[in-house]
Amino acid sequence: MKVKSSFGINYIEYEIGDVIYLAKNQPLKLDCGKEISDFPIAYQTYGQLNEDKSNAVLICHALTGDQYLASTNPVTGKKGWWDNVVGSKKAIDTDKFFVICSNVLAGCMGSLGPKEINPKTHKPYNLDFPFVTINDMVRAQNLLIEHFSIDKLHAVIGGSFGGMQALAWSVLFPKKVRNIVPIATSYRHSPQNIAFHETGRQAIMADIDWCGGNYLQERKHPHKGLAVARMTAHITYLSQKALQSKFGRNLQDKANLSFNFEADFQVESYSRHQGYSFVERFDANSYLYITKAVDYFDLESDFGGNLSNAFKNLSKYGVKFCVISFVDDWLFPPSEAKKLTSSLISCDIDVSSIIIESSAGHDSFLLESELLQNAIKGVLG
Amino acid sequence: MKVKSSFGINYIEYEIGDVIYLAKNQPLKLDCGKEISDFPIAYQTYGQLNEDKSNAVLICHALTGDQYLASTNPVTGKKGWWDNVVGSKKAIDTDKFFVICSNVLAGCMGSLGPKEINPKTHKPYNLDFPFVTINDMVRAQNLLIEHFSIDKLHAVIGGSFGGMQALAWSVLFPKKVRNIVPIATSYRHSPQNIAFHETGRQAIMADIDWCGGNYLQERKHPHKGLAVARMTAHITYLSQKALQSKFGRNLQDKANLSFNFEADFQVESYSRHQGYSFVERFDANSYLYITKAVDYFDLESDFGGNLSNAFKNLSKYGVKFCVISFVDDWLFPPSEAKKLTSSLISCDIDVSSIIIESSAGHDSFLLESELLQNAIKGVLG
Repeated sequence: MKVKSSFGINYIEYEIGDVIYLAKNQPLKLDCGKEISDFPIAYQTYGQLNEDKSNAVLICHALTGDQYLASTNPVTGKKGWWDNVVGSKKAIDTDKFFVICSNVLAGCMGSLGPKEINPKTHKPYNLDFPFVTINDMVRAQNLLIEHFSIDKLHAVIGGSFGGMQALAWSVLFPKKVRNIVPIATSYRHSPQNIAFHETGRQAIMADIDWCGGNYLQERKHPHKGLAVARMTAHITYLSQKALQSKFGRNLQDKANLSFNFEADFQVESYSRHQGYSFVERFDANSYLYITKAVDYFDLESDFGGNLSNAFKNLSKYGVKFCVISFVDDWLFPPSEAKKLTSSLISCDIDVSSIIIESSAGHDSFLLESELLQNAIKGVLG
Repeated sequence: MKVKSSFGINYIEYEIGDVIYLAKNQPLKLDCGKEISDFPIAYQTYGQLNEDKSNAVLICHALTGDQYLASTNPVTGKKGWWDNVVGSKKAIDTDKFFVICSNVLAGCMGSLGPKEINPKTHKPYNLDFPFVTINDMVRAQNLLIEHFSIDKLHAVIGGSFGGMQALAWSVLFPKKVRNIVPIATSYRHSPQNIAFHETGRQAIMADIDWCGGNYLQERKHPHKGLAVARMTAHITYLSQKALQSKFGRNLQDKANLSFNFEADFQVESYSRHQGYSFVERFDANSYLYITKAVDYFDLESDFGGNLSNAFKNLSKYGVKFCVISFVDDWLFPPSEAKKLTSSLISCDIDVSSIIIESSAGHDSFLLESELLQNAIKGVLG
């Protein structure tokens, strides 16, 4: 079903692509205790599902990503965020695999989220939207997979927050997955990362145009607060080295320091651009909900403080893992990938682990990387 | 001269301690090209200046510090920020040394800054305040030292932004200093650090109560924006390890996750507290001016891209250095202290360098550390 949706206070209309309404007959029970039913999940698929439905690869998007991984994003007009990895003859070869990517629950690209209309009130949900966890998001993805009558996914792959979803898939639905590829991610969100998310949320809520969450009715949007949140987060996506080599202390379009509050340095200008271009494509309340879901993710505490307990039943289902991390990623450092790998090994699970040399930092998983592409190709077979 | 000053929109009156008006006869020319004259600098002294005026130690405060390093802060009522280092029989022994600390130019604790009244307009300067650099701040400190008729400081010591001032002293006034102790600092502000400062500034300016900088006249203060700026900055002052060991993912006063936007985790609650307690003692425009001054600091580019050029004349004056850094400081990592040390050595300068094992991160210089205290004691003799 192709539908139109809207985004932002100016209600930019865009062709949202495929949308399905899930949990029509039986509601989905969320971790917070509330239930949702007959809710939209927007998704894109690439390639063809084969006859025995054995070639499906689910890709889970990152915090501010969406379902447009290998096709033009209808809001930004830019090419898909994993266009260098997914496509005909690419690492995830759409001539061979049926690739699915859905916008997460609480997202803002057509799936049920805080900006969607609550049928009971005919107003946007805003903060009446129920809290969702990464497990809830994965349960919704599972309903989508059931809609395709796929019994077993060939692989679930994701970077960052997407990698957390991939891990959650292995724990929630071990019978339904053959390969799990968590990239640049962790088994739990660290206190430092929680602190960064919290400053982002506080920046949004500090913006008078947030209106206690009801900005859509007020025809406003907390652009400034959301931009500040994005600016802070974006620093964590890059490494010191990357910022040094990309910008150093180069000045922006000037020969001398300005001695005023203009952006003197390229890195300031870049940072402002990252912030203010983000608000054109993302909903502030979605940002609040999704960051909180990431903060809640903790496979260790969910399983009594012992990470291995999370995976102890997986070996009997033959689930394989390929854990990928990047040397200069300080948001999800390789040490956390190592701990994850050790826990998997201790559960007698078939796991390969790759730490890729890259000075780009966390965002390395989005960049052109032959090593990353070869690793994924190797997993998919 | 003891005077009263005020702080914040509620004009909390406090006894400001000693204040002197400097540049009465000859204006101070600032790097931005403007001049200031007859301007106040607030300062505190501890101990007695000896007869030959050879026992003076200047301590330069950090970004949000002030002159109250070893006595009760009149705004917060808390003990001085370096009370564990400075005092009778302490590492910087006030029985032996005459310790001076002045609030920096552009600060908000009594020295000339954006919240002070412009005698020409009878209104606060706000954004009409001239841009000041770290060199300008040091030139103002030099006028204070001249007021005491001190020809040569026994030492200039400072951590973080204070360490940058100490370095600037060595470059601007090499004849007037015997020992320089830069702690947890760098010869220039890195692009990552500039990006963090810029998000803080954007957070302040995004706050509607900033009023384009004119909040004092409007009887407002951008509390929320300033708190967000402080929250972000505060994360950079601590190490991953410190956050992990101090808070981990412990919940704040609750047994279970709240499934709402309250502070679930201790680290969130701590972060909010850091932000909102800060606004009670700091002026938002001062924060803008001082962070920009730090961003501008770059001894390398000031000297033609070669850091050694900054120090090439120092050996003939016999200036000695002790460069101190901390292992887990990711704001000013030891690698930058090493580069500084190498440059000093290449100029045939007497330099000792200490990298202290501490998991606390950047804020280590403010904490109890026997190694740090011994190092400083060793330098002072």
